[in-house]
Amino acid sequence: MSREGLLIVVSGPSGTGKGTVLDMLRKANENVRYSVSATTRQPREGEIDGQNYFFKTVDEFKSMIEKNELVEWVQYCNNYYGTPKKYIDDSKASGIDIILEIEVEGAINIKKMYPDSVLIFILPPSFEELQRRIEGRGTEKPEVIAQRMEKARREFLEVDKYDYVVINNNVGLAVEDINSIIRSEKLRYSRNTDIRTQLGV
Amino acid sequence: MSREGLLIVVSGPSGTGKGTVLDMLRKANENVRYSVSATTRQPREGEIDGQNYFFKTVDEFKSMIEKNELVEWVQYCNNYYGTPKKYIDDSKASGIDIILEIEVEGAINIKKMYPDSVLIFILPPSFEELQRRIEGRGTEKPEVIAQRMEKARREFLEVDKYDYVVINNNVGLAVEDINSIIRSEKLRYSRNTDIRTQLGV
Repeated sequence: MSREGLLIVVSGPSGTGKGTVLDMLRKANENVRYSVSATTRQPREGEIDGQNYFFKTVDEFKSMIEKNELVEWVQYCNNYYGTPKKYIDDSKASGIDIILEIEVEGAINIKKMYPDSVLIFILPPSFEELQRRIEGRGTEKPEVIAQRMEKARREFLEVDKYDYVVINNNVGLAVEDINSIIRSEKLRYSRNTDIRTQLGV
Repeated sequence: MSREGLLIVVSGPSGTGKGTVLDMLRKANENVRYSVSATTRQPREGEIDGQNYFFKTVDEFKSMIEKNELVEWVQYCNNYYGTPKKYIDDSKASGIDIILEIEVEGAINIKKMYPDSVLIFILPPSFEELQRRIEGRGTEKPEVIAQRMEKARREFLEVDKYDYVVINNNVGLAVEDINSIIRSEKLRYSRNTDIRTQLGV
């Protein structure tokens, strides 16, 4: 079966618990890794270059942008963050499945650059439950909650751009869902067009 | 997630062990059932109408053909065999996943009638291994073995019509592969286009 790794792009409104799901997925499936981002922010204590981030100067980062070496990038709090294309390509070639947790707009761009990427949208059990989760944090003012719900509603409108939808009602089941997606995607004929050669037919 | 059952069409050359894989799949996954065929042959002792087969007279069977009530049919040893459309449609509607084990040509026709069916091609670990398995039965003359291998080779040419390829190197792993395909197919956005309504967004 396909020995190339998958590029798995995961999105979902804040409050769906996608961080927890992806952390557990990485523990359950050692072939899955987070993409390592490039950044211009200073390393914090204990952070290792090439493992937590690729630490870059602003000039280096801008040069990466110009040379199209990033599949996406953002500027946030005076620092740049981006996803190096080489890291994704090298990981895929060595059979590692790479997870990119990214907002909807970025995900759609990734799909254009990597048509064989797998886009997964993580959903709450219901929109009401999402509101309860966001309110449940108890730290936000009503206006902020309303803003977040409105943002979630806008993100939901883009769900039709995704290949798969996973409802996070139970973290363990959501992880099994994603593992099934990874396993079955590797069995797709479109990823195994050399199958007859492989089998000596 | 999608509550409609899947129509799973399985093909593969004789000698790939697909019968064993599918029997184990049915034991491991109680939501999966074989399609029940209609036939004009006489019931054998213990066979139950509607469970082993739908037993029909030749006139009844011919009437089903005329009314387009069969998704495919063949005549074999003076008897007719066919797959009733109603059985498939009712099973899908009630959330049962139906397996149809069928030759390549029939599978391609099913895909035309049911574009949302899932076509799986079961493969041997290698073409050499397939030859060993066919020879290993020790019951066939060299000409017959050569004919079977030639038939298998022709069937392989159609693998590109299938959605998934599963190599049967180990029956348990092949069953897990198919279960992953079933699980993940139900998570496809294309089978959950009403997801926003479902979640109350």
